[in-house]
Amino acid sequence: MKIAFCYPDPAATAWFEELRAALPEAEWEDWSADPTPGPGRSGRAEYAVAWAPPQAFIDLHPALKVLLNIGAGVDALMKLRLPASLMLVRLDDAGMAVQMAEYVCHYLIRHVREFDQFQTAARSGQWQQGRPTDRADHPVGIMGLGVLGERVAQAVRQFEFPVLGWSRLPKQVEGVRCFHGQGQLNDFLSATRVLVCLLPLTPETRDLLGQATLSRLRPGGYLINVARGGLLVEEDLIRLIDSGHLAGAALDVFRTEPLPAGHPFWSHPAIQVTPHISARTLRRDSITQIAGKIRALRRGESVAGVVEWERGY
Amino acid sequence: MKIAFCYPDPAATAWFEELRAALPEAEWEDWSADPTPGPGRSGRAEYAVAWAPPQAFIDLHPALKVLLNIGAGVDALMKLRLPASLMLVRLDDAGMAVQMAEYVCHYLIRHVREFDQFQTAARSGQWQQGRPTDRADHPVGIMGLGVLGERVAQAVRQFEFPVLGWSRLPKQVEGVRCFHGQGQLNDFLSATRVLVCLLPLTPETRDLLGQATLSRLRPGGYLINVARGGLLVEEDLIRLIDSGHLAGAALDVFRTEPLPAGHPFWSHPAIQVTPHISARTLRRDSITQIAGKIRALRRGESVAGVVEWERGY
Repeated sequence: MKIAFCYPDPAATAWFEELRAALPEAEWEDWSADPTPGPGRSGRAEYAVAWAPPQAFIDLHPALKVLLNIGAGVDALMKLRLPASLMLVRLDDAGMAVQMAEYVCHYLIRHVREFDQFQTAARSGQWQQGRPTDRADHPVGIMGLGVLGERVAQAVRQFEFPVLGWSRLPKQVEGVRCFHGQGQLNDFLSATRVLVCLLPLTPETRDLLGQATLSRLRPGGYLINVARGGLLVEEDLIRLIDSGHLAGAALDVFRTEPLPAGHPFWSHPAIQVTPHISARTLRRDSITQIAGKIRALRRGESVAGVVEWERGY
Repeated sequence: MKIAFCYPDPAATAWFEELRAALPEAEWEDWSADPTPGPGRSGRAEYAVAWAPPQAFIDLHPALKVLLNIGAGVDALMKLRLPASLMLVRLDDAGMAVQMAEYVCHYLIRHVREFDQFQTAARSGQWQQGRPTDRADHPVGIMGLGVLGERVAQAVRQFEFPVLGWSRLPKQVEGVRCFHGQGQLNDFLSATRVLVCLLPLTPETRDLLGQATLSRLRPGGYLINVARGGLLVEEDLIRLIDSGHLAGAALDVFRTEPLPAGHPFWSHPAIQVTPHISARTLRRDSITQIAGKIRALRRGESVAGVVEWERGY
């Protein structure tokens, strides 16, 4: 078995060595630095392990049967010309779900319990208790109920917030009031005050979070976006915050990353910017999962995380 | 049944009216504003519902059999001269446990995931991902494994942190490595990096968190105190942070409250000050619990939260 590896990241060498150690029965080729043929490169690999490979990497591997994506989101891959017979497999969880749960619960509690206001008061030496907030007034709506969305819902539930969920197709999640499809989107939004976005970026979901949707949230709404920047119309968010309809947002992903210098998000007092760190891809967990999936596929077994071309994730 | 009420709080009238509505079979007397006898005041109540009553309130009610404390901590009551036959009953939970869990998880995640550093970087327009932190490097030690401590432990566990617990007497809590008594305190501390204090304030626990104990925490330790200010030797904490052994602290309680103007905690960059809001006493939940306990005691049943004089809580 030949496996081609392509990962444009400073840690590529460490990943390559650990992947080789995890699957020593394979013949590995590292295309990370330069995706062109050369000495010791056959271009005949049937498997690839890659993150955001260039088109040249795909074109030089006509024998590819399976590409394992180093990440949960495959929107970057979907921009390439890929053979229709290629099986794409994404990471499912691999230590990311609990990190997402941490991120979402942190910003949810920080917002609802007004910890930033306490911090500001403290910095000027003010002991101001204010009035207690009631979590019943802050129903949390989670868009996307896959592995990550379910884990986040579970974490939010245990703090006793009302939890709603929305997904493309009908789902049932314990303790979550579930909505689905375009037909129930408005009902979901108007019952939600803190909106958590975990949707994949597809042609259907691009720009989904804009004036028409965000304005339906309950007054004083708050957005937590840990999915992809392309889901959000950034100017609409700013307009809705500045008009007072939304209270603010915690954003980990942006239409352009890194977020460009001078972008209004950087300095907006009601927007918390983090540099796409809500869920880091953990090398050890990811490699264990990738190696397990390759072995399962070789034995003819099915694996989780196979991308459906039609839905785009 | 006569019940005397004493609550030096701006919301006393609302509490009094709702308590009367919850227990209409009792004859209620409000001593909140002025704890001296007067028209319509018999001083013959057998029950009292009170928070931090003055000594005069106790002295004027020689028939008192049961005092229900509006709060979980009874350290203020224990400073009074009380008849040895008086049964003290404290609130157990009443909506406080989940608030404590929110507070602790928020500051735990904020510290371990370095969200304040991201915020500082963002304010100067810096996209700096840094290296991922590993929660295995941040074992969380919880001092006090009562109703509140167990609830906090459960919340921290679901974010997959290693959790340790310490209590006066042996306890078993699922998923928590439990230590107890003075004999195991040092082992507990040296295995802990983030210390969460939920102990009651008693003569035994006063000043427990000082140089000798906090210096045993793993390097880079962090303190979250949501119990009582008297547990902590404030100068020792500052010294251990400034020397670099501890990374910082989130403090909700202080030796003097409100925290005095000019206190070094206000401006210390590694200390987060909140104004004793980690768990607000929720009126509706508390009144339901107090009414239920009074009715149970009248039927001769036992209730939770009875203070043991010897242990002091």
